[in-house]
Amino acid sequence: MTYILHEDSRSGNCYKIRLTAALLGLRLERREYDIIKGETRTPEFLGTINANGRIPVLQIGAGDSGRFLPESNAACWYLAEGSALIPSDRFAQADMLRWMFFEQYSHEPNVATLRWWLAFVGEPSLSAAQRSQIVAKRAGGEAALDLMDEHLARQDWFVGQSASLADIALYAYTHVCEAGSFRLRDYPAICAWLGRVAALPGYVPMAG
Amino acid sequence: MTYILHEDSRSGNCYKIRLTAALLGLRLERREYDIIKGETRTPEFLGTINANGRIPVLQIGAGDSGRFLPESNAACWYLAEGSALIPSDRFAQADMLRWMFFEQYSHEPNVATLRWWLAFVGEPSLSAAQRSQIVAKRAGGEAALDLMDEHLARQDWFVGQSASLADIALYAYTHVCEAGSFRLRDYPAICAWLGRVAALPGYVPMAG
Repeated sequence: MTYILHEDSRSGNCYKIRLTAALLGLRLERREYDIIKGETRTPEFLGTINANGRIPVLQIGAGDSGRFLPESNAACWYLAEGSALIPSDRFAQADMLRWMFFEQYSHEPNVATLRWWLAFVGEPSLSAAQRSQIVAKRAGGEAALDLMDEHLARQDWFVGQSASLADIALYAYTHVCEAGSFRLRDYPAICAWLGRVAALPGYVPMAG
Repeated sequence: MTYILHEDSRSGNCYKIRLTAALLGLRLERREYDIIKGETRTPEFLGTINANGRIPVLQIGAGDSGRFLPESNAACWYLAEGSALIPSDRFAQADMLRWMFFEQYSHEPNVATLRWWLAFVGEPSLSAAQRSQIVAKRAGGEAALDLMDEHLARQDWFVGQSASLADIALYAYTHVCEAGSFRLRDYPAICAWLGRVAALPGYVPMAG
């Protein structure tokens, strides 16, 4: 099967899909878009690839038979179906999804957004409304990192005894959170877990 | 199996789980908390039920053997596992999760938050930072509703030929979105779909 990742390679959401594919030994073709230049808001992108105007989108199959799957965690689910990255136990599988929904609701909008604003958009270019959210997003991001650190002080992986999509989803923006002004040294259990993820066979770094 | 839903019954996220259980014919016990009064931030709640201090939490099993599952969409997944509410086709299943992640990332933080701020907290009680987000949240909510309306103009259900967890997840806050100042009459395909969901065998309303 041909897999094509429509992405902006600076995005941790896109990296999740590349990391999942790498850990599974799957080959991905890559198409790069610059979201700051609006390349995911063109009529062609909106009409064919994602009406929601966002990356990543995983394209499954080439040409006219291609199907398009937006939302990073859903794309990871598709790729990992039937693999050890999704636990088969009923509670563990739901608990993995629990951490993936936590990632999109409580972690990404704080940890990823501050990185994007501070490291890519640049603080002087932020709107007044964005600037007024920095304090709340820093507090929200620290609360998410606290919760992760507390959990990882008790177990090596988010769910069960081995790496799952929950680890991949949370790794993507956590390991680059210092670009958003968070301090990894405040979270020793997270730091140890980051090392475990980076040591997984097949691991690929974000820039690459 | 004993299922206990820890909830604030005003929350659409909690209602998703009640609606899923009702459509599946499962019985839920219910424990009510007032989130405005901080009842999900007590040491007991944080220590036993959810360290993230949020509802809903689905408790599976009573007493010391009980296990706790936060995140509404993960709880729905647990309850619906093996049922017709989760399609078995690989792409359809991932596509259902795609709409559920869309709900938590692009829909709930806009559509649900404005309802909460305007109908429960009250505009005079909002902080300046919250007030500065109203315009962006209204635009974000309208974009999410536009995308849903466009999709539902082409098909009766979000994924495949019958109701799935994607419909339940998106129904919860969409059907009460007017409390957040959105106008349902602007979205005719959504209105028709709301009627199809409410006609499902076993359907229960939000207040009940």
